Amino acid sequence: MSHTAEIIAVGTELLLGNIANTNAQAISQSLSSLGVNVFWHTVVGDNPERLREALDIARRRADIIITTGGLGPTYDDLTKQTISAAFGKKLVFHPDILEDIRRYYASALHVPMPESNAQQAEFPEDCEIFDNPVGTAPGCAFESGGVHVLMLPGPPHEMTTMLRRHVEPYLRRLSQEVILSHDIMTFGMGESSVEALLRDQMEKMTNPTLATYAKPSEVRLRATAKAATQAAAEAMLAPVVAEVKALLGPIVYGMDVSGLPEACLNMLKEKKLTFATAESCTGGQIAERITALPGASQVYRGGVVSYWTSVKNAVLGVPQEILDQHGAVSEETARAMADGARRITGADIAVSVTGAAGPDPDERGTPVGIVYIGLSTPEGTHCRSLNLGKRRRDRIQNLATNHAYDVIRRYLSNLPIN
Amino acid sequence: MSHTAEIIAVGTELLLGNIANTNAQAISQSLSSLGVNVFWHTVVGDNPERLREALDIARRRADIIITTGGLGPTYDDLTKQTISAAFGKKLVFHPDILEDIRRYYASALHVPMPESNAQQAEFPEDCEIFDNPVGTAPGCAFESGGVHVLMLPGPPHEMTTMLRRHVEPYLRRLSQEVILSHDIMTFGMGESSVEALLRDQMEKMTNPTLATYAKPSEVRLRATAKAATQAAAEAMLAPVVAEVKALLGPIVYGMDVSGLPEACLNMLKEKKLTFATAESCTGGQIAERITALPGASQVYRGGVVSYWTSVKNAVLGVPQEILDQHGAVSEETARAMADGARRITGADIAVSVTGAAGPDPDERGTPVGIVYIGLSTPEGTHCRSLNLGKRRRDRIQNLATNHAYDVIRRYLSNLPIN
Repeated sequence: MSHTAEIIAVGTELLLGNIANTNAQAISQSLSSLGVNVFWHTVVGDNPERLREALDIARRRADIIITTGGLGPTYDDLTKQTISAAFGKKLVFHPDILEDIRRYYASALHVPMPESNAQQAEFPEDCEIFDNPVGTAPGCAFESGGVHVLMLPGPPHEMTTMLRRHVEPYLRRLSQEVILSHDIMTFGMGESSVEALLRDQMEKMTNPTLATYAKPSEVRLRATAKAATQAAAEAMLAPVVAEVKALLGPIVYGMDVSGLPEACLNMLKEKKLTFATAESCTGGQIAERITALPGASQVYRGGVVSYWTSVKNAVLGVPQEILDQHGAVSEETARAMADGARRITGADIAVSVTGAAGPDPDERGTPVGIVYIGLSTPEGTHCRSLNLGKRRRDRIQNLATNHAYDVIRRYLSNLPIN
Repeated sequence: MSHTAEIIAVGTELLLGNIANTNAQAISQSLSSLGVNVFWHTVVGDNPERLREALDIARRRADIIITTGGLGPTYDDLTKQTISAAFGKKLVFHPDILEDIRRYYASALHVPMPESNAQQAEFPEDCEIFDNPVGTAPGCAFESGGVHVLMLPGPPHEMTTMLRRHVEPYLRRLSQEVILSHDIMTFGMGESSVEALLRDQMEKMTNPTLATYAKPSEVRLRATAKAATQAAAEAMLAPVVAEVKALLGPIVYGMDVSGLPEACLNMLKEKKLTFATAESCTGGQIAERITALPGASQVYRGGVVSYWTSVKNAVLGVPQEILDQHGAVSEETARAMADGARRITGADIAVSVTGAAGPDPDERGTPVGIVYIGLSTPEGTHCRSLNLGKRRRDRIQNLATNHAYDVIRRYLSNLPIN
């Protein structure tokens, strides 16, 4: 049986544009991989009449309603009261939950719990309570007249923790099946070209299924299987993953990783190698992407942001003749930057980027979008030349960063750099 | 007369969680500063029946409906057809608009226009067409029975361009007043403390109004005035801005700027000074934030990401005795890193960050959240010591980056660093 869900976010800060509704995105991704159809997102303010109206509409068109927000301790946090009234349920006080919240205040927040928090320990009768190890507001879920209502806190970190710990297991229990997904990550080909290569597979498949999700410059392929057990689902996915990898070849860079930096982190760890960076037009983004990941210090030694040409010479040791003759944006400079970064940090390999990110051409007239990626290795120095076209500055920087990591992972996989 | 708006986003990719609904956020911010109440956001897939249902609900509860998405050239782009049917309007073909689209293909995309794009030149009768200088899908607006319907394209870059060029002027015409806002930017005090300082002002004001918007570690204060003319609105805002600045003092770092990096960029440009960076736990984020801004090369020379201790010594020249005696995470190392970055880049000033971003303490047992910011200047070297507590890694990195820029702007403003 297929379920239909509506996600209702409660919070005036969303309607003021203070924040984007990233909770709905995270829940949608999760439900999509569980095989639950999401047909509606609704956002409503901290207003009980309008929340009631949203609930009345949602229960007519969905059998799973997930709300986020409005579970806090203040007077305008009215989600539990409004939902309980809409579904004819009393609120019941749980003293044990209040003790949990009091302990969280003492151990994590180091302040005594304000007494207004007592309302956070009230829940609709006959519900399942979802504990919140990273905040004060527990969530809950109940079923009424064939409609499942799940209430989650608004802060994204608390919401996603509860989503993994409680919501996904709750929804899996609604179905007798195990639903399992693997994400096959690709870089270097547009979504429509990837789909064209896989059209026969994608069209004929019903279980497992294969879907594409595009990010700027990357395509994620999600293979999803439904089966009676985890092992059976894995067995169904294995040949699909193998076939996709065979059809797409070297554009596949990993499975179930967050992106190219994490794929490189894992490969470098396994090979016990370290790397360094020398960045011009990406301005520190290559460094920032790897150091955002825990454990980066095992493989990343450091790097130089040589934004001015003088820094390329003085810090990275790019010879002044190369800079004068070929310019700061050139293959020769990219190679010398990578060599310099490797030498001064002592890393096993080093990647470099120099290019024109715009909005204007560089001082020598290099057109926006021209980018060179250098890679210095013990076996020699390589370069990838790119023309990324006249895109927006942030897109050129983002794409150049991904190309830098793609050059690293191709080197580590013994694939040609270009 | 106060208007009430509903924002309807059309796109299955939103319901799959492929992207977040940042369009609704941008439109909400804009409408909020125009004095239009946004009471609902709705997201619906590329499905004409469900879009029709969303429209029927929205027209009962809002007098401004803004849709995003579904204006493309493919068979599932059905927004204009569905809305026209819902409001009893015929679609009319505009040959001049098709020529505009054809020219856009030739000049910006360098490919001939597919003939399927003809539907992008069809619009509901009696509507105002919004041209799209950065994409192929024009938008449009009409009024029917007291309800204004505005259709905008889905790609965020196209949507925001049209929002500024067409939607804001259209909505301003609905009111006889000019609505003008200024954003007063602060760093260093929580939202509730800022509100406590300004409570008297905020409560007694009706026009101008003053509202707070919190980002992690920053609070933006928006002062908004309604008046008959721009000059009259400016005259009403001036004393409010002055009073807020006087009450908040040095935590105010600028007005109408995107953040601390842009405030520093402007101040450095004005003083014709350059800066450099030396980053450990922020891993390149300080560099990345400034180089994301066009014109950064006027003030930013470059920097070093000295993630490994050996790089602090070899590249930045931090004396080995300091590293041995005080450790990589120490005030002494922060000062020496900043001095080293200034020396090797030749910049006028340099900022450094060293700290423990977690998830684990550093090898000497420095607790997560301990961070030192160094600032090297011609007049001497300064340090700000921070205990950011046991937060998530990305929050510590983000907060440390903002502190680094705050140290720079306080130095440039002749304010004490600490």
